[in-house]
Amino acid sequence: MKVVIFGASGETGRSIVKGLFESSTDFEIICVTRKASINSKQNEEFRKIGARVVAADMKGPEEDLVQLLTGADVVISAVNAAVLTDQIPLVDAAKKAGVGRFVPCSFMTVAPPRGVMLLRETKEDVLDHIKKIYLPYTFIDVGWWFQLSSPRLPSGRIDYAIPFPNDRILGDGKAPSACTHIKDIGRYVAKVIADRRTLNKSVFTYSEVLTSNEIFDIVERLSGEALERKYTTEAELNAQLSEAEKVLQAGSKDYAAISTVWVLQYSRSWGIRGDNTPENARYLGYIIGKDLYPDMDFTTFEDYVNEMLQGKAEKPYA
Amino acid sequence: MKVVIFGASGETGRSIVKGLFESSTDFEIICVTRKASINSKQNEEFRKIGARVVAADMKGPEEDLVQLLTGADVVISAVNAAVLTDQIPLVDAAKKAGVGRFVPCSFMTVAPPRGVMLLRETKEDVLDHIKKIYLPYTFIDVGWWFQLSSPRLPSGRIDYAIPFPNDRILGDGKAPSACTHIKDIGRYVAKVIADRRTLNKSVFTYSEVLTSNEIFDIVERLSGEALERKYTTEAELNAQLSEAEKVLQAGSKDYAAISTVWVLQYSRSWGIRGDNTPENARYLGYIIGKDLYPDMDFTTFEDYVNEMLQGKAEKPYA
Repeated sequence: MKVVIFGASGETGRSIVKGLFESSTDFEIICVTRKASINSKQNEEFRKIGARVVAADMKGPEEDLVQLLTGADVVISAVNAAVLTDQIPLVDAAKKAGVGRFVPCSFMTVAPPRGVMLLRETKEDVLDHIKKIYLPYTFIDVGWWFQLSSPRLPSGRIDYAIPFPNDRILGDGKAPSACTHIKDIGRYVAKVIADRRTLNKSVFTYSEVLTSNEIFDIVERLSGEALERKYTTEAELNAQLSEAEKVLQAGSKDYAAISTVWVLQYSRSWGIRGDNTPENARYLGYIIGKDLYPDMDFTTFEDYVNEMLQGKAEKPYA
Repeated sequence: MKVVIFGASGETGRSIVKGLFESSTDFEIICVTRKASINSKQNEEFRKIGARVVAADMKGPEEDLVQLLTGADVVISAVNAAVLTDQIPLVDAAKKAGVGRFVPCSFMTVAPPRGVMLLRETKEDVLDHIKKIYLPYTFIDVGWWFQLSSPRLPSGRIDYAIPFPNDRILGDGKAPSACTHIKDIGRYVAKVIADRRTLNKSVFTYSEVLTSNEIFDIVERLSGEALERKYTTEAELNAQLSEAEKVLQAGSKDYAAISTVWVLQYSRSWGIRGDNTPENARYLGYIIGKDLYPDMDFTTFEDYVNEMLQGKAEKPYA
């Protein structure tokens, strides 16, 4: 099975490349990179584990993309959130090349298609374009990352692993939210893309459903350190979001301003609205990974906290 | 089962009211009408067959709608295309009232959610709002109507039944398109709304899949009259559509101008793109009526042509 991956060097992309190699020897993997990055350390590593690395631009020219994608069973896009709409020419080229299955970049939390998160809306726009041209696809969401879920400890001993600490509890901390260790994303993707049942479907793969209160309890229990429980109310979060949205409404195209809105909308969605659950995914039309692969093992949040406490965790976005 | 119907007096709405009454005595049917129409001839007929007719406005006030909808198992909206977005307050009220299932106004051909037809996009916007607030729903499409499918005959003897004659064949006339007798729509809806399997799903019910060439063949064969086959090419249709869209782009809110675009986009979708098929419906995530109710009888297009030839057909929009 020939798999072409765009955005392979990001957090999700690296998990997918590794996950595919670890799951099966049947995958022939091609990582697409920018010309300037062809000899990067990351691409050297991809070559070492057996991937081919080729230079291309997903915006075209179309004939180059069609040539690259011809014969591909699966094309996976795990590109940066800033360039999501650049996938449109890639989708068109995949259709012309007769790609067997296109996995657009989603890999996020579950939320309704529109009216809740700008980031989701852009991803839905790409999916709508896929549907407009009847490109075979699978849309995959994975929940929130363990790596973005933990509060810091008073001792500071897990700070090394935490890029954006979750020191404040959202709302009353009781909203359940599905989450996953980054390294398991690729293992789930390996299952999904080789599965006929997931063709032209949305799939939600996640490892565990936890509330913020449960996450704090686990971190306290395993570390032996007490955590102060500070809460951000829905009203406070909405006020922050209104401020952040004003900057966009004033016409800012600044990436930092957009990211701030994305992050706050994520928080409201999984932490307050409670969108990110298997039940809501089912309502929204997803097939659930746990139904498809009931026996699949995964890293639990407890395992991950122990990883952090043992100094073995890796910080994402490092 | 208590069913509240908005837009009951339209073509689709009347089919639904009749279809529910004919299918089962278990339906308690409430037709919602405007205050001014409460004593219309149509509403008298609804009362005669056993429906309750109540006056309300789907735009609110919300407390009136919540009161009306409280206790409803199903709310069906078959409202006029011009007022589709007025369903938003109705959707919000249905959520507050705890309605068991909301059927928004779709009842159209199958097409991709966005980028093909403005009318579909507005219907998808309403569906997106339903999903945003997790209102239990069923989205029903029914294909193209037999009543809008037939060409006229040279003798003029079926003109009485045809509101918009289909005298020109679109493209090469080979695009398959799923279609249905208007009177069967309500019979399908009666099945769908009483079916647990269709909750929070899109369902495509249709009677037959026919190409325009096949439709011309059937009309010729049953009437014994020869039809001239005139074709509208894709390029000609696109040119007409561009002209019509220019009027909207210039800012026109005129209903006739919008309808012209809708009609031409319908033609391109079912007649040229070939969107309106069970295969595409499956790709787009619909459950198919024929899979759910394989033994259900229906009026065929041949039956319908015979109805017309025998002078027994009813003209829609009369």
